[in-house]
Amino acid sequence: MTAAELSELIRRKRSYLCVGLDTDIRKIPAHLLKKPDPVFTFNRAIIDATAEYAVAYKPNIAFYEAMGPRGWESLQKTLDYIPNDCFTIADAKRGDIGNTSGLYARTFFDPTAAGLNFDAVTVAPYMGHDSVIPFLDYPGKWVILLALTSNAGSADFQRQRIHRTGEPAGPGGEQELFEVVMETAQTWATPDQLMFVVGATQADQLARIRAIAPHHFLLVPGVGAQGGSLAEVSRVGLNAGGGLLVNASRSILYASSGTDFADRAADEARILQQEMATYL
Amino acid sequence: MTAAELSELIRRKRSYLCVGLDTDIRKIPAHLLKKPDPVFTFNRAIIDATAEYAVAYKPNIAFYEAMGPRGWESLQKTLDYIPNDCFTIADAKRGDIGNTSGLYARTFFDPTAAGLNFDAVTVAPYMGHDSVIPFLDYPGKWVILLALTSNAGSADFQRQRIHRTGEPAGPGGEQELFEVVMETAQTWATPDQLMFVVGATQADQLARIRAIAPHHFLLVPGVGAQGGSLAEVSRVGLNAGGGLLVNASRSILYASSGTDFADRAADEARILQQEMATYL
Repeated sequence: MTAAELSELIRRKRSYLCVGLDTDIRKIPAHLLKKPDPVFTFNRAIIDATAEYAVAYKPNIAFYEAMGPRGWESLQKTLDYIPNDCFTIADAKRGDIGNTSGLYARTFFDPTAAGLNFDAVTVAPYMGHDSVIPFLDYPGKWVILLALTSNAGSADFQRQRIHRTGEPAGPGGEQELFEVVMETAQTWATPDQLMFVVGATQADQLARIRAIAPHHFLLVPGVGAQGGSLAEVSRVGLNAGGGLLVNASRSILYASSGTDFADRAADEARILQQEMATYL
Repeated sequence: MTAAELSELIRRKRSYLCVGLDTDIRKIPAHLLKKPDPVFTFNRAIIDATAEYAVAYKPNIAFYEAMGPRGWESLQKTLDYIPNDCFTIADAKRGDIGNTSGLYARTFFDPTAAGLNFDAVTVAPYMGHDSVIPFLDYPGKWVILLALTSNAGSADFQRQRIHRTGEPAGPGGEQELFEVVMETAQTWATPDQLMFVVGATQADQLARIRAIAPHHFLLVPGVGAQGGSLAEVSRVGLNAGGGLLVNASRSILYASSGTDFADRAADEARILQQEMATYL
């Protein structure tokens, strides 16, 4: 999916909601556990209930990986079930030396490898350009690079002040690491292949981030259970093409633990979509 | 396995060789492709051929993941086949917010989850303490944190100069990011649970790294096909308890593409072990 197609999708659905499929077999409604594939059964119901309101789905790979081979089978079936007009993100946070990143890219982008054909994968930047570029070798596929995450540990390294080589010492020559990551990564890929993960709990940072990357899509994972404000994020983050994907996971998936879980998930997704429509 | 047990293993085998099981189905000898599980068949032969010379095995998870569910089955069988007296490392470079890192830890450390029971997993530091600490909740298990990697992209961020908060500007108050990572991570875990990944192609850095972490094990992936010098790494990196695991992957696995592949792998592993014995 191109950036223009994603922008059109956002306009058409009046939504920039991404539903995070962080499906935990220990949390899904008990009546589903009798099914042959409870995780896929749950995901299918969530997708049916939310597809009207969402433009993207983001399975968190850890939840599937933790179940071994049958988890990967649930993931394949889930991805195949997501409607074709939705953007799909493997939230995998991979990154390794070039030939290994190339294999991770095959895993998520080449359906002849592991049976998966995601539109995008989240990638960790620590190992630098040759850990990211292999993911860009697939036309039409996207890297969503970690920039500033929403967790407490983001302060440990992402917010460290970097003294750029060749710049004078002192505040004028300094940037925080996540800013260096965002500026550097823009030399590797255009806004048609590269997004950034930006934690919504740090909305004060979002204006600076939007200034660094005015044309890129930002994936904002911290709205909902992680506590960010949708109004704030939308006010600062939206651009002409939308430019935002705002993720909600637990607040939708686990809105109810009863047999009405899908109806309640639809309610939560609709509330977010209707709020988003007012900002677009 | 404790650090003391690993040190004893190194003394007994006169080796600190780690064999990287980066098993690529496109590279293994053609006669194995007729077997029901060619990857496991290859790994079993490599393990049989090298167990006398190696103290650790490190499957690179990307290679298994790229094969989908059957890749995870090959990985499980391979891990189960590795002799109990060898240290096992899942080279996965995972890292996410706390609850997700907790699931990755379950995947690799809790055999009731995905059927895997590794001794250690490689972890990416970018997301900070709460992305790493869930891996430390398993007694006797290890985090091997990326510090300075051997690829060209390590210069992009790992070697950026950090101006530590509260320190004066200028070289005296600066460290490179990988040094900040190593110092910070030592506040999270003891040398009994924490190792660092250090690329051997940057042996000039290894003395500084050893000074920052005198008691920690270092996993050095860059010897062999990636080009580091075993003599240099050993001279600078060995400490009283050994303190090194030096990995070789392709130079052992693909020493021959014929039916003699296992014998040739044994030869390559023996050459490395015999050189290591002279340094211990």
